Amino acid sequence: MRSKDIVKKAKKFCIETTFAYPLVVKSGYGCYIEDVNGKLYLDFNSNVCSCPIGYNHPEIIDVIRRFVGVGAHKIAGQDFYNEEAVELAEELVRITPRNLNRVLLINTGAEAVENAIKFAFRKKGPLPGVSCTNAFHGRTLGALTFTDSKAVQKKNYPEINHEIIKFCTRGNDPEINGLEELIEREWIPAFVIVECIQGEGGYNVASKKFIKNLRKTSKKYGFPLIIDEIQSGLGRTGKWWSFEHYGIKPDIITSAKALQVGAVISSKEYDPREPGAVSSTWGGGGRIDLAVGLKTIEIIKHEKLLDNARKIGNYIKKRLKEMKNRYQIITDVRGLGLMIGVEFSKEIYKDIIPKIAFKKGLLLLGCGRKTIRIAPPLIITKEEADKGLDIFEDIIKHLKR
Amino acid sequence: MRSKDIVKKAKKFCIETTFAYPLVVKSGYGCYIEDVNGKLYLDFNSNVCSCPIGYNHPEIIDVIRRFVGVGAHKIAGQDFYNEEAVELAEELVRITPRNLNRVLLINTGAEAVENAIKFAFRKKGPLPGVSCTNAFHGRTLGALTFTDSKAVQKKNYPEINHEIIKFCTRGNDPEINGLEELIEREWIPAFVIVECIQGEGGYNVASKKFIKNLRKTSKKYGFPLIIDEIQSGLGRTGKWWSFEHYGIKPDIITSAKALQVGAVISSKEYDPREPGAVSSTWGGGGRIDLAVGLKTIEIIKHEKLLDNARKIGNYIKKRLKEMKNRYQIITDVRGLGLMIGVEFSKEIYKDIIPKIAFKKGLLLLGCGRKTIRIAPPLIITKEEADKGLDIFEDIIKHLKR
Repeated sequence: MRSKDIVKKAKKFCIETTFAYPLVVKSGYGCYIEDVNGKLYLDFNSNVCSCPIGYNHPEIIDVIRRFVGVGAHKIAGQDFYNEEAVELAEELVRITPRNLNRVLLINTGAEAVENAIKFAFRKKGPLPGVSCTNAFHGRTLGALTFTDSKAVQKKNYPEINHEIIKFCTRGNDPEINGLEELIEREWIPAFVIVECIQGEGGYNVASKKFIKNLRKTSKKYGFPLIIDEIQSGLGRTGKWWSFEHYGIKPDIITSAKALQVGAVISSKEYDPREPGAVSSTWGGGGRIDLAVGLKTIEIIKHEKLLDNARKIGNYIKKRLKEMKNRYQIITDVRGLGLMIGVEFSKEIYKDIIPKIAFKKGLLLLGCGRKTIRIAPPLIITKEEADKGLDIFEDIIKHLKR
Repeated sequence: MRSKDIVKKAKKFCIETTFAYPLVVKSGYGCYIEDVNGKLYLDFNSNVCSCPIGYNHPEIIDVIRRFVGVGAHKIAGQDFYNEEAVELAEELVRITPRNLNRVLLINTGAEAVENAIKFAFRKKGPLPGVSCTNAFHGRTLGALTFTDSKAVQKKNYPEINHEIIKFCTRGNDPEINGLEELIEREWIPAFVIVECIQGEGGYNVASKKFIKNLRKTSKKYGFPLIIDEIQSGLGRTGKWWSFEHYGIKPDIITSAKALQVGAVISSKEYDPREPGAVSSTWGGGGRIDLAVGLKTIEIIKHEKLLDNARKIGNYIKKRLKEMKNRYQIITDVRGLGLMIGVEFSKEIYKDIIPKIAFKKGLLLLGCGRKTIRIAPPLIITKEEADKGLDIFEDIIKHLKR
């Protein structure tokens, strides 16, 4: 079946989600996705950061091959134990600060956030929680309450009790201590949840002082600081977790996307320690996903992809900053490692540039109101980065005129 | 690594969920699960009804083999299209009444419920929703609001606005028209959600009149009837969907577990039809899960497993009813197809019988307060059913003394 037939069928049977590209995936090679018509696309957003090691890594293929003929491949972590889950949990503890040593494997990013906040509620009671302006934490109704990205994501959906403080990107923001001021004005919350680098909300980088203040305030009043690492984690920023750039240790973190499954990593203090308090039939997606997640971490380690994310990330940022000097429609270039946002002067550029890039074989994805994310697989080479950036610059050059 | 070592490691690194059995899964054959020590267990609950065709079906093995070497195996349905998702959606529409013809593929049962109720909220506004006593709809905070099974599942977790009506198993229940009475007393809700046969809540079978009344009332007041088919669907009761036993057509249904991924199937009327209203990075789990889900439906069809579920289900029910006549501790035997509940006179039996059965190589799982579920894979033979029932009866016989 050709691409057009499948898209036509999808429109007939499938409820529309976002469908950013009219691309029917067939396979992938390194940083390239191949569609069913055989056309290759250089992926500059790694399917929203969920494919950190590209699309057909030989070691991942070996993992899938290992499960051919293994019965009970989809049984995971609720009623039974399995080695894949235990090994992934152990590895996650290994790459995370010592205070974060209890792991709940769950299926998706949204479920990771739901469970992280459940840990907090279990301990503190059903108090309001606090999140930040422009945050994105997922689309299930609990996680969605703390999401503040686009109106279409929330229209008519009910919310649980919560409060939103300003996400501060500058240390001299007058609201830099918004959490403590909120508490003095109103109440002590069950938790505060924050992305150090916002994903869907616009690749906004939190000010160091802002994150440090959140840490200080939550310690002072005895409620957990939850860092959402679903998009920013597992090496994306050049460190395992984005919070490592901030010199703080959270109480609970969430992971997913790059990890291939969802996870909550918690300090002992917030482990609910009560059988039945949290659970899920497929906790951890299934044994294949768990094994691919573990292998992903191993590959990031032995191929030194944290270094590569830093190195190529800096190179891309340098080139983008040169473009910013050259083209006035670029108003900001920001980010850490291979999580880079390019902000434009007008919203229309965020929408139109990915459409043109798609035709030229480059996958770009917008975020926030006026930003495009540059987040290729962590395995990207300088040559591949240049290839994508050349297409990107060529588009902007012609837009400018 | 032997079983004990893995369980020990799990206790060190993994947050406890339910862990009904100290069993470390290695593989499976037909209706049997094999642990890492090589011991086989006859599975009488199909991992909470999520393994309808057993554990190493050759056609499923072929599906996994097909993905060895295919890049982008985990990319699913948000930004890209893929053939696996479209084919599964088309097949789901094929086995479902004509009014249910729009499919959202999502990752889990909880996410299916979250999205089903989002469809309702989108159309009707953030009004309260209605669910039933003893219901179980999932553990994310939206779905959990409408869950009323065990206190430990909800303690300290906040809820959205809702109301609970009595789940009626008898047509002469004075509250058989509880939904209409609630509306006359209070307000018109955004939706009513119900399981025709409750799963986690106790394998309770709704009265026909109760379900028909829900249908009548929701039509009269213009809000959707959502049937949760996550545990009861995809052939478990001897029909594709449990609501087919009730002679009604719902507006929205949820599926997961047996399907290997989550799904919402909706009438056109409740399709949100707005890009971005619902979405998920892995919408549909991943291409392997989607393909395994499709193959599962195909196998149920060509191996005539709906017939087998009815036939063996009736046989098991007959034997259990004979046991009920023989042993006073059994107070009720109920269910449809291979979704059968055995209720006991005391709660302790629900907890102790699965523990003894485990040692004898039979996997049983409790539900509700005093019930044990009998829900083996749909492929089960009469001989395998007898083997499990003989162990079951032997345990009860000795308990009695």
